[in-house]
Amino acid sequence: MEKRVGPDEARKQFRAGLRVPTAGWAPGYAQANLIAVPRDLAYDLLLFAQRNPKPCPVLDVTEPGSHTTPLAPGADLRTDLPAYRIWRHGECVAETGDASEYWRDDLVALLIGCSFTFEQALLDAAVPVRHLEEDRNVPMYRTNVDCRPAGSLGGPLVVSMRPIPAPQVATAVRVTARYPAVHGAPVHVGDPAGLGITDLSRPDFGDPVTVNDGEVPVFWACGVTPQAAVMASRPEFAISHAPGYMFVTDVPDRTYEV
Amino acid sequence: MEKRVGPDEARKQFRAGLRVPTAGWAPGYAQANLIAVPRDLAYDLLLFAQRNPKPCPVLDVTEPGSHTTPLAPGADLRTDLPAYRIWRHGECVAETGDASEYWRDDLVALLIGCSFTFEQALLDAAVPVRHLEEDRNVPMYRTNVDCRPAGSLGGPLVVSMRPIPAPQVATAVRVTARYPAVHGAPVHVGDPAGLGITDLSRPDFGDPVTVNDGEVPVFWACGVTPQAAVMASRPEFAISHAPGYMFVTDVPDRTYEV
Repeated sequence: MEKRVGPDEARKQFRAGLRVPTAGWAPGYAQANLIAVPRDLAYDLLLFAQRNPKPCPVLDVTEPGSHTTPLAPGADLRTDLPAYRIWRHGECVAETGDASEYWRDDLVALLIGCSFTFEQALLDAAVPVRHLEEDRNVPMYRTNVDCRPAGSLGGPLVVSMRPIPAPQVATAVRVTARYPAVHGAPVHVGDPAGLGITDLSRPDFGDPVTVNDGEVPVFWACGVTPQAAVMASRPEFAISHAPGYMFVTDVPDRTYEV
Repeated sequence: MEKRVGPDEARKQFRAGLRVPTAGWAPGYAQANLIAVPRDLAYDLLLFAQRNPKPCPVLDVTEPGSHTTPLAPGADLRTDLPAYRIWRHGECVAETGDASEYWRDDLVALLIGCSFTFEQALLDAAVPVRHLEEDRNVPMYRTNVDCRPAGSLGGPLVVSMRPIPAPQVATAVRVTARYPAVHGAPVHVGDPAGLGITDLSRPDFGDPVTVNDGEVPVFWACGVTPQAAVMASRPEFAISHAPGYMFVTDVPDRTYEV
């Protein structure tokens, strides 16, 4: 499977039915989390994002009912992600490769920065990215850190984890801090227990990866956080991407470097 | 008049009726723009801010009907600014030192970063700030640049202007770029005509200041922009600060340095 394709080709394959995590796909282009809610919940969701900018950096907000975005003008948000989750009252009632039949005219979609976007910059700085090496989805964990709630929405911070060799932790911090729109610097370096994570080998989302001797688990805020808020707050309806199965945009990743 | 007081003392004087521009007051503490709208317009306003982050960096959003903010726990947003403007259908129907009689239970207030916040950092870098030297309000101008609209809200970008000696323009850019939450780097350096500004001596808001030979007019995005959107889009009701008469917070300005 050739991941090193352009974003349009990647989306075309996902639209045709390929269901794979998107880490490493279309290198050089930003990826995004998707969370779509009915218009009457959109204020709470946008305020939740504003109040929790580390996990929820907003890249775009669609018009109600629209399934397009300037982040990828030719794309269709209903079909072009490799996998979606459909939520009713906080329960995941379906996981699908095509959300068309669930999309509603009153849905507002937030596209939120994804840390896959800075992985090319990590590789360019000779920082290893283990889930790419092992061809897996990134491991993600629910934490014991509460997000600041907004209206009817609240829930825990979700993080992604990358094991980094101790001498390169500072480089990983420095490189990713330059990308605040895609989660930026880590929220936690080392000791998983400090986030209430008891077992790195059992992530709440995605796949476990190998942590070698001399490596430190480094945690970044994760755009699955709105899904955790949906689980905790049980709104009537929502559509999200499946964790790790992101929206590949046409925006060069360096656009988000500051 | 002693401006070099703490933020609580500054707010106390404004609450007691002092009506002066706040540039130079409570040095070392962040200041904020205020724009409050009915809850049913709050989504459009928050989305307008999200889509126009240079003029509208959101520092806090209040709960509907609340007149308090974590940015200054002891403060009352209805009384503690030196001057307010009351807007009905896009017309300024009153300017007052006390907005209590106009405040409504359905109002949501956005507090938006203000460039007065980085002026101490400019002074610390030996960059002159002319309106402080001349003890005037900062000059502000409507531009011919359209903001990206959101729902029912749209309007032009408003900018503040500081004349900077040519050898110090780079320093002014470098210093203010470190404060993205209070408008960050300039949006335009030099030629006012490029923004559609025909006469620097006639600002749309605030006071004119002297521009000396060898100085370049430098323009920063301004938190009066939401007021210009109110004027252009004519929502039923809004309350704002009067331009230059800001909310003085308890947040140290260095908090917003990145």
